[in-house]
Amino acid sequence: MLDELREAAARQRRQRALKSLVLGCKRLLSGRGQMNGTPVARDLIERLDILPDDQLDGFFDYLANDLSPDPQTVLRRARAYAENPGAAELIALTRAAEPARQELLRRLNRTPGGTATVLRLRRVLLKRLPRRPELAALEADLLHLLSSWFNPGFLQMKRVDWNSPAQLLEKIILHEAVHEVDGWDDLRRRMQPDRRCFAFFHPQLPDEPLIFVEVALLPEMPDAIAPLIDKNATPLTAEDFRVAAFYGISNCEPGLRSVSLGNFLIKQVAEHLHHELPRVRTYCTLSPIPGFSAWLRAAPDLAALPGVGKAALAKLTAARATLEQASGGDLGALQSPTLLEALDAAAQDALLALAAAYLGHASPTPAGDPVARFHLDNGARLERLNPRGNMSPAGLRQSFGLMVNYLYDLDRIESSHAKFRNGAVARSRAVSGLI
Amino acid sequence: MLDELREAAARQRRQRALKSLVLGCKRLLSGRGQMNGTPVARDLIERLDILPDDQLDGFFDYLANDLSPDPQTVLRRARAYAENPGAAELIALTRAAEPARQELLRRLNRTPGGTATVLRLRRVLLKRLPRRPELAALEADLLHLLSSWFNPGFLQMKRVDWNSPAQLLEKIILHEAVHEVDGWDDLRRRMQPDRRCFAFFHPQLPDEPLIFVEVALLPEMPDAIAPLIDKNATPLTAEDFRVAAFYGISNCEPGLRSVSLGNFLIKQVAEHLHHELPRVRTYCTLSPIPGFSAWLRAAPDLAALPGVGKAALAKLTAARATLEQASGGDLGALQSPTLLEALDAAAQDALLALAAAYLGHASPTPAGDPVARFHLDNGARLERLNPRGNMSPAGLRQSFGLMVNYLYDLDRIESSHAKFRNGAVARSRAVSGLI
Amino acid sequence: MLDELREAAARQRRQRALKSLVLGCKRLLSGRGQMNGTPVARDLIERLDILPDDQLDGFFDYLANDLSPDPQTVLRRARAYAENPGAAELIALTRAAEPARQELLRRLNRTPGGTATVLRLRRVLLKRLPRRPELAALEADLLHLLSSWFNPGFLQMKRVDWNSPAQLLEKIILHEAVHEVDGWDDLRRRMQPDRRCFAFFHPQLPDEPLIFVEVALLPEMPDAIAPLIDKNATPLTAEDFRVAAFYGISNCEPGLRSVSLGNFLIKQVAEHLHHELPRVRTYCTLSPIPGFSAWLRAAPDLAALPGVGKAALAKLTAARATLEQASGGDLGALQSPTLLEALDAAAQDALLALAAAYLGHASPTPAGDPVARFHLDNGARLERLNPRGNMSPAGLRQSFGLMVNYLYDLDRIESSHAKFRNGAVARSRAVSGLI
Amino acid sequence: MLDELREAAARQRRQRALKSLVLGCKRLLSGRGQMNGTPVARDLIERLDILPDDQLDGFFDYLANDLSPDPQTVLRRARAYAENPGAAELIALTRAAEPARQELLRRLNRTPGGTATVLRLRRVLLKRLPRRPELAALEADLLHLLSSWFNPGFLQMKRVDWNSPAQLLEKIILHEAVHEVDGWDDLRRRMQPDRRCFAFFHPQLPDEPLIFVEVALLPEMPDAIAPLIDKNATPLTAEDFRVAAFYGISNCEPGLRSVSLGNFLIKQVAEHLHHELPRVRTYCTLSPIPGFSAWLRAAPDLAALPGVGKAALAKLTAARATLEQASGGDLGALQSPTLLEALDAAAQDALLALAAAYLGHASPTPAGDPVARFHLDNGARLERLNPRGNMSPAGLRQSFGLMVNYLYDLDRIESSHAKFRNGAVARSRAVSGLI
Repeated sequence: MLDELREAAARQRRQRALKSLVLGCKRLLSGRGQMNGTPVARDLIERLDILPDDQLDGFFDYLANDLSPDPQTVLRRARAYAENPGAAELIALTRAAEPARQELLRRLNRTPGGTATVLRLRRVLLKRLPRRPELAALEADLLHLLSSWFNPGFLQMKRVDWNSPAQLLEKIILHEAVHEVDGWDDLRRRMQPDRRCFAFFHPQLPDEPLIFVEVALLPEMPDAIAPLIDKNATPLTAEDFRVAAFYGISNCEPGLRSVSLGNFLIKQVAEHLHHELPRVRTYCTLSPIPGFSAWLRAAPDLAALPGVGKAALAKLTAARATLEQASGGDLGALQSPTLLEALDAAAQDALLALAAAYLGHASPTPAGDPVARFHLDNGARLERLNPRGNMSPAGLRQSFGLMVNYLYDLDRIESSHAKFRNGAVARSRAVSGLI
Repeated sequence: MLDELREAAARQRRQRALKSLVLGCKRLLSGRGQMNGTPVARDLIERLDILPDDQLDGFFDYLANDLSPDPQTVLRRARAYAENPGAAELIALTRAAEPARQELLRRLNRTPGGTATVLRLRRVLLKRLPRRPELAALEADLLHLLSSWFNPGFLQMKRVDWNSPAQLLEKIILHEAVHEVDGWDDLRRRMQPDRRCFAFFHPQLPDEPLIFVEVALLPEMPDAIAPLIDKNATPLTAEDFRVAAFYGISNCEPGLRSVSLGNFLIKQVAEHLHHELPRVRTYCTLSPIPGFSAWLRAAPDLAALPGVGKAALAKLTAARATLEQASGGDLGALQSPTLLEALDAAAQDALLALAAAYLGHASPTPAGDPVARFHLDNGARLERLNPRGNMSPAGLRQSFGLMVNYLYDLDRIESSHAKFRNGAVARSRAVSGLI
Repeated sequence: MLDELREAAARQRRQRALKSLVLGCKRLLSGRGQMNGTPVARDLIERLDILPDDQLDGFFDYLANDLSPDPQTVLRRARAYAENPGAAELIALTRAAEPARQELLRRLNRTPGGTATVLRLRRVLLKRLPRRPELAALEADLLHLLSSWFNPGFLQMKRVDWNSPAQLLEKIILHEAVHEVDGWDDLRRRMQPDRRCFAFFHPQLPDEPLIFVEVALLPEMPDAIAPLIDKNATPLTAEDFRVAAFYGISNCEPGLRSVSLGNFLIKQVAEHLHHELPRVRTYCTLSPIPGFSAWLRAAPDLAALPGVGKAALAKLTAARATLEQASGGDLGALQSPTLLEALDAAAQDALLALAAAYLGHASPTPAGDPVARFHLDNGARLERLNPRGNMSPAGLRQSFGLMVNYLYDLDRIESSHAKFRNGAVARSRAVSGLI
Repeated sequence: MLDELREAAARQRRQRALKSLVLGCKRLLSGRGQMNGTPVARDLIERLDILPDDQLDGFFDYLANDLSPDPQTVLRRARAYAENPGAAELIALTRAAEPARQELLRRLNRTPGGTATVLRLRRVLLKRLPRRPELAALEADLLHLLSSWFNPGFLQMKRVDWNSPAQLLEKIILHEAVHEVDGWDDLRRRMQPDRRCFAFFHPQLPDEPLIFVEVALLPEMPDAIAPLIDKNATPLTAEDFRVAAFYGISNCEPGLRSVSLGNFLIKQVAEHLHHELPRVRTYCTLSPIPGFSAWLRAAPDLAALPGVGKAALAKLTAARATLEQASGGDLGALQSPTLLEALDAAAQDALLALAAAYLGHASPTPAGDPVARFHLDNGARLERLNPRGNMSPAGLRQSFGLMVNYLYDLDRIESSHAKFRNGAVARSRAVSGLI
């Protein structure tokens, strides 16, 4: 009984909060918001910022339902434009078709904290989306605006090193997603002159790294991750730098999902290093193959792989048979380091051939390995497969310890990307030879 | 004959240049532009930057004609959305209705020089527009994008003073539009502690002031401009500051016309001074009345002025008669300083009454005095009329030497603005009493 | 045999190195060094920097023996000045009496790395000095020069916080000498807004903190160290700050021993906080008493303590007897926490009385407790004794867990200091009452 | 009568002011000044700063008379050291021989404004010195301290350009002593990329340039000043830079007279340009010859010139005769541009020969041309004489329009300097051939 009363009171409070939010939005969208919106926007932002995530649903509903274009008005404008496709008709149509919430969000963004609030809205919304697909159009508007505001022309690339503020380095430790940073000593090693870290920042959020990439400067293309992230490795001197290997790229801001940042960052870093270290001629990655093991164990139809001719199919089928034998019938057993170390040459080759086939069927659609898709779409080339590249539990589980180098050949990026968009994967001769 | 040949060759060159521009745009808009657009965009920007203004027409035509939404597609999407107003339909509609040139311009903006190039496109386009109204939709797109990119949340307000780089101060001298700066000595005076100057900057154009405002700190509301810009005036000390008078606001970037900057700048400066100098309680302007003389000499229909009752009409009609007599029948004669100085009290009152009536008929539509419209729409109040406030040739010509103070009462800004939007002008009792 | 040869070769190498050092010094001191000394000085510095510490003795000998003033010349000049004390005679005398090595060191200091090299020379020399007292005059010259170069007017006080470069924070961890920093988490707590850290820097060594002080902002004067350095303590908010307690002051550069830095730093920090946090009215320390236990156990002659009258002597003698009984005859046993916790009121009072007597006999000569001497000479007042203030092994060993607050009353600093110089210790009534 | 009373009152005020200054000095020098001197020093500095220049004499007298070493004490210490030249004796002697005012000035320098005050003291003192030679020892102490504090290792060289604060550029205009800057347009030209300006700053006086040098980047060694300082000259691009010509060096701080700054600045700039612009291979000056005309007209004894053999003497004597004839007996007439332009080849050669002889007799003692002395002592070489290099009134008056290039050959600087110190002038073959 008492609980019910409490619940009712809380519901009322929530409704009141929502109501005043909606009122604020209307005020901000009115003529007065146009000229004098800053205090209104500031007030709205403060209200939004104190609202717990789970109470944002009402606000999302308001944005999605009340601030969508009016179907009849758009239809009228579209007809007028179809009859007479002039400037005036087009302007009227564009205005009618743009959801009013876009203007609302732009006005929110006018105050200092605005950008952070909009990012948070999208962060929360993205979590809701799977259960509430009707919010997809709102989500599309947020992505549209954030892409415009976080375009690489507005971002600043900065080097992060041991001279950076501890506050920033702490965020690097927190967000490193590929090869976890094991405390400050580990970080310190990654900040030595033969390791580099670069991040994108937005002028409006100067202390927040948006995405960062970790680079190792090496004498040759690396074939295993352990030496790169070994805390106790002796730093190399600049004369020995020949290869820049991207060994980790991590997003810090989930609110920017699907906003293209990584591909711009990698290329800007490559260009920067190209000027700073003219001796470095090779830009590549040392990347995981997160989906390989799951794919192989799911008994895929090898014949359906793109670009696999008769001979290749025979080879791949034989490879699978070899592996099944080597693993005693359970391919999962190959995730054991002992077994992997003990594989004979034929079994090893079989593993490489199947991995090459797996990576070769990546495509611009959300199929295949996500890391492969990212780099190949970005214009990189599938360069080399490295057995026993990552013998950590995660590496064994994901890909039987295999790692891969993607090569960024600055002169061929555009053609490789085009090739990928047309359904083919750019590969080195060595990789092609595996199949 | 030779001339014709030359002309033909030049025409060919221009066509080739345009063709490669169009090709570049297509490449940038394609899938490969999405992921690897930076070099493509950079190339396009370089081509655009070397093209003389008078050769941009072909490019504008391409943007206006080829990158508008397809009428039939939009109509189809609008129908689908009207039938079933769901998220998927809306997303499809929004995409179809947005002109492809918006995406093109966003991608151009991704490279460092991009913003400057887009600004220049709009600068040139605005000059073309009067003769080529069919480009209005393109112009609307540019304004739309620039408003989003130059929103006040992204701008930095900085104080400009005698410690600022000479390079920046030189631009202030160049762009000061209200009361010309007569060389470095004049500027030096305006940079003393009892004069302030604040400008907005965009992170992407860090050396370019976008708009700046000049402020005088004074013991009381000023009634004439000459003492404020007198090079040899002795600076006041901070104890005497009670009033902050905005005496000049100048745009530096014609490509940002109609992007709201001035109103945000004035309010941000007022807030800044409010914190720095708590003794300053009054924020006002000392402003010109650029349209008064022309209006009065054009013999306006006083009866048609908004909010003018019978009694006021009689008073204004009498005032005009008084002035006509005082000027010997030619109101233009009142632009002579000698005549102005010699006016009797009745004639002076008549002049003030008519000015009050003139300023009182400002409205949100592009009617009436533009400076009045700016400040009133911005939430300021018409506070005081100052005879002989500006006896320079320009002041005499524009408004018979009259100047006006608009008062920014931070607590009433929103209500004054709302009043103005509803057709009425906020006035002090003193100004109301004049009519 | 072979060893002897090797040894001889090494000796020869060392002699050659020394010889070229001496040659370089002569060149730098010559006329050509005056005008064109930079490359010569740079070369000398490089040679010195690679010389191991244990090979600097020959160089010290050269500085001490060859670059001292010539006794006969000085005597001649002194006689001339005594006969006719005019300007010319004085200038000649001053020049003759100044050791030439001072000019040499000043010229070394003209190149970028020079200051660091001179600091290192003194660092090494100070270690040698106990065994080689004949180098004392050289040491005096180094101290003289460094005091002039590192005078507080040239130093910059900077706040160190969680936004400081990791490189700098690492040095703070390394050099904290009073209460060891236990890794980055511990440091992070000490960098929260209710803990402050300030350091002095020299413009020539911008990345090197010279000395730093740690401050806790608290609601009242602290009586124990553990809560101040507890990693998991919840930070206070600014409204609760009333007291600024200096709980650690650490030198980072042994080469600056005896150069007054700490006293200037404490006062500059107090002045800084006074402006930033007007609510903070009390500036005090929470300090160790490093020499108390050793003094007490050495059975000091209580009658010889300064300012101890008959009554006080009786009280102190009784106090010692009480403690001896409580400790079972061995005062060292009182370093056990169990025993300390179990002391009855009388024994506790006895301990405090003896500590007050110990601290009260500090004097400007190097007698008594060094920490007491530093703060009392600096103008602070002996304010409060805190039993069980530091129950760590070090605290128990040094002072049976006792800690002390010294109070910095900005208005009385000069008089307290003068009092101390005259042989008396400024004490609060509470401390005076203990004896 | 009234005047006498007023005068007496003013005298009393001055005496009181002096008395409290002296008291402050004693306090600062006492033990309490050692530890807690900052407020005392600050108070002293404030008192000194408001004292008009003409009232500093009493203070100078105090410093000179009361704070000199005691003759008998020094004599005693000197005897003790002569008897037993050990470390303790030397330390005691050094202390006794150093004037106490040095320590006083060092303590003044501990507070922020201290350095500026000490500089001002020396500025004023240097003006007094000619009439009050008894202050020479005080002056020597000031020079000694300032040389130690303004040593080049503590100074920062910064480029001054059109991006520098107007406040700084204004000081450059004010202090340019060689070729006057004619307003901001003139300055603007000197700040273009083919003109450079570098200044030394002290960390304690960050807004005050101490000395600056102006450099022109050119395709070849310049032979006239007019094109270098022509406001309307078109800037060259970087590909054409081959020669860096120092065309002006100006001190901004008279209080630093005789402190070596210029020679260090020139070399540091040369080194800086050497790295920035590897194509620039030649570093030279284009310098005035301020004393040539006065020397020549004073009928110098040519036979007494150093290094002039029989043949040379004959040549120079003939040259003088030629010039006397050409000038109609009055060598001063040669300061007329018309006459200079009309000189025949023989007379021109005569002029050059005599100028070469004049410059060749420069020596490290304060004889000969001061500019020549500066550059030759600095290690430069007399490279080329340029007739009609400066046809401005000053150029004609000083040196009949002649200018000279001194060459800075970085590899030979030390040997040229040594040569000069030994009494010979380093000259190019061309200049040697003139005599």
